[in-house]
Amino acid sequence: MTLEKRQPIPVSEAIQRCTNQALRLSQTTVDLYEAEGFILAEDIVATYDIPRFNKSPYDGFAIRSQDSEGASGAQRLAFKVIDHIGAGAVSSEVLSEREAVRIMTGAELPKGADAVVMLEQTVQTDEGFTLRKAFSQYENVSLKGEETKTEDVVLKKGQRLNAGAIAVLATFGYRNVPVFQKPSVGVIATGSELLDVEDPLEPGKIRNSNGPMIHALLKKEGIDSEIYKIQQDDFESSLAVVRTAMEQHDIVITTGGVSVGDFDYLPDIYRALDAKVLFNKVAMRPGSVTTVAVSEQTFLFGLSGNPSACYTGFELFVKPSIYRMMGALRYYPALVRAILMEDFKKANPFTRFVRAIATFDGRATTVKPSGFNKSGAVVAIAHSNAMMILPGGTRGYSMGHQVDVLLTETEYYQQDLYL
Amino acid sequence: MTLEKRQPIPVSEAIQRCTNQALRLSQTTVDLYEAEGFILAEDIVATYDIPRFNKSPYDGFAIRSQDSEGASGAQRLAFKVIDHIGAGAVSSEVLSEREAVRIMTGAELPKGADAVVMLEQTVQTDEGFTLRKAFSQYENVSLKGEETKTEDVVLKKGQRLNAGAIAVLATFGYRNVPVFQKPSVGVIATGSELLDVEDPLEPGKIRNSNGPMIHALLKKEGIDSEIYKIQQDDFESSLAVVRTAMEQHDIVITTGGVSVGDFDYLPDIYRALDAKVLFNKVAMRPGSVTTVAVSEQTFLFGLSGNPSACYTGFELFVKPSIYRMMGALRYYPALVRAILMEDFKKANPFTRFVRAIATFDGRATTVKPSGFNKSGAVVAIAHSNAMMILPGGTRGYSMGHQVDVLLTETEYYQQDLYL
Repeated sequence: MTLEKRQPIPVSEAIQRCTNQALRLSQTTVDLYEAEGFILAEDIVATYDIPRFNKSPYDGFAIRSQDSEGASGAQRLAFKVIDHIGAGAVSSEVLSEREAVRIMTGAELPKGADAVVMLEQTVQTDEGFTLRKAFSQYENVSLKGEETKTEDVVLKKGQRLNAGAIAVLATFGYRNVPVFQKPSVGVIATGSELLDVEDPLEPGKIRNSNGPMIHALLKKEGIDSEIYKIQQDDFESSLAVVRTAMEQHDIVITTGGVSVGDFDYLPDIYRALDAKVLFNKVAMRPGSVTTVAVSEQTFLFGLSGNPSACYTGFELFVKPSIYRMMGALRYYPALVRAILMEDFKKANPFTRFVRAIATFDGRATTVKPSGFNKSGAVVAIAHSNAMMILPGGTRGYSMGHQVDVLLTETEYYQQDLYL
Repeated sequence: MTLEKRQPIPVSEAIQRCTNQALRLSQTTVDLYEAEGFILAEDIVATYDIPRFNKSPYDGFAIRSQDSEGASGAQRLAFKVIDHIGAGAVSSEVLSEREAVRIMTGAELPKGADAVVMLEQTVQTDEGFTLRKAFSQYENVSLKGEETKTEDVVLKKGQRLNAGAIAVLATFGYRNVPVFQKPSVGVIATGSELLDVEDPLEPGKIRNSNGPMIHALLKKEGIDSEIYKIQQDDFESSLAVVRTAMEQHDIVITTGGVSVGDFDYLPDIYRALDAKVLFNKVAMRPGSVTTVAVSEQTFLFGLSGNPSACYTGFELFVKPSIYRMMGALRYYPALVRAILMEDFKKANPFTRFVRAIATFDGRATTVKPSGFNKSGAVVAIAHSNAMMILPGGTRGYSMGHQVDVLLTETEYYQQDLYL
């Protein structure tokens, strides 16, 4: 029994040690319709102006603005409609004095036209319409290049491809999109007390919930994972499973086995692999024994077997590391300030991360623990949409204090949208 | 040319008309490893206590607390270790006076034991260890049922299954999970100016970016969609495509064609389908002509062809409707207050939704437009992580004002995590 002495490091330092790793995934291409959520591998440069031509933002009539000079309610001016174009069509006409072309939203202005009269601003006549006000040059016109000019960088390398980015790529004709690969991940739940989901219960044992949880956390990021079993709870077979997972994946996540207990083999496994241990103790609760190491270009995340600690370790260390490996420039969730709705009187020298429910009512953001506040409380994770951060120190926290909150879920925060 | 007069309704009223629809998707089961993001179709009730037994939260020694009475630094008490159990194992021993069992994190306490001495609190001896303090009953013990009791509802029908919920389902042995189906969606981009992504450019035409954008917005929710083309831009063929899409899908989203222009067939299509139009004008910019209708149990979303309006319409109306159809109880993103970093001096009677970048620096949340502020600005969507809400009225907004911001992206808000 070795009682290893470990030195805790601050959470921010631990995160940095992960994201500072030079491990990078290679570039590939992905179909536009599969690209959402990938990280862009190249700058995308506009190959033409947007709009590509002066176009009408409304349904109406294209006119020469000078022809509308002097128009008023008392002196309506009459225009003759000489053509009628839908979006996508181009008029072959060139406007002469007091001539107009009926134009649809999105259509290119005909030659000579430099303003658009909205349908609602006209009164119909046999030959066309009359109007009652003067139009200035380019009034109601979307100008060529006003949104984006040729050679502009419209998307940046390292940007996460959201639906808007997909729309930009479609606009510039990218059916195949240059992106960085997503990592391949192996997940190993260690612990001889673990049963599979399908297994009947046995005395002293519990079902493995960390494996499915990590699988789901990765799935949310569009990343597939392979779950490995450790059949025999001894050092040699555990090492063999880790080695196999490392051969097949960019990242190997283990849950459990990171402590210094008699059955915790991971410290020895890291030694056997000659892995570079980035840290093995973090000044946080839960999950202080979280260990991250790198061996042969593989990231090894040793998360605690305790579900809350496991979850916290994933959010704080695994996710940013994954996005960094994928070449992302930004990889942290929204961190908001919220009013604490419960007391946390007991001081803790370590920073606490508490699964929580953040509520937004359009005026204030409040936060409270999502359930039973023990690190094993898996039900509390299920009901959380946020993670409260209570920095360590010599004082506790009281109701009414402002605290930092990481928003860990995308959506579905509220039953009503207070508009 | 019919100039239909439309009455705008407030945004919140429009959203409610969508979510009040009784359209519901049927129940199904999904494999646990695919269940992330689905809406749970039944309450999940705990079939046993969690923890299932009194267990050790630490590596240490299980003792009878009464045996430690009177221990102090001056009077250390000695214990004999009579067994050694790992997690998942159960000791057959029953503790007698001053006996202890070496116990690992997560293991069940042996009979007679009611406290756990942490490894760090002991000094090793030949037969066992000595300790220097008295332990109270259940000190360092995770009590049976302290987290969840048998019969507790641990997950609620209508809850979105996040990774924590997946862990709870795994704990209670659900390999197949009762959920509501996700909708099947058809997407139709209308407009004769639209080219496909692969098409070379032609005069007056632009590539269809709304189709891929909607596809990506749905993909983010784990929903597949089928994209339909309207080959001929006339009423009959447009109606035929809508009918085909309706036969095959729960939801049909069209982009474009919702105005009252000569080439905007959707109002006529809704009439031909005898659809119940929920609204066809909303007091918002962009997207005031957004139309939502229901016909034969199919939701018809008529979004504007303009990319920003299309995006806004999806976020405000389509997404909540989808989650409501899926039986979700909560379906709105986080809405935070942020400090406006730019002037919007011009008053607008309609509520404006502006694609924006929200920034969190651990103290303040600020927000600014993400780009060119015209409704056609697709590049601005690509760079946004939020949607600013500027309620309509007789005044504009100035830098420094507090405004509401919908957080439209999950993650990746910041380059640094300020802890």
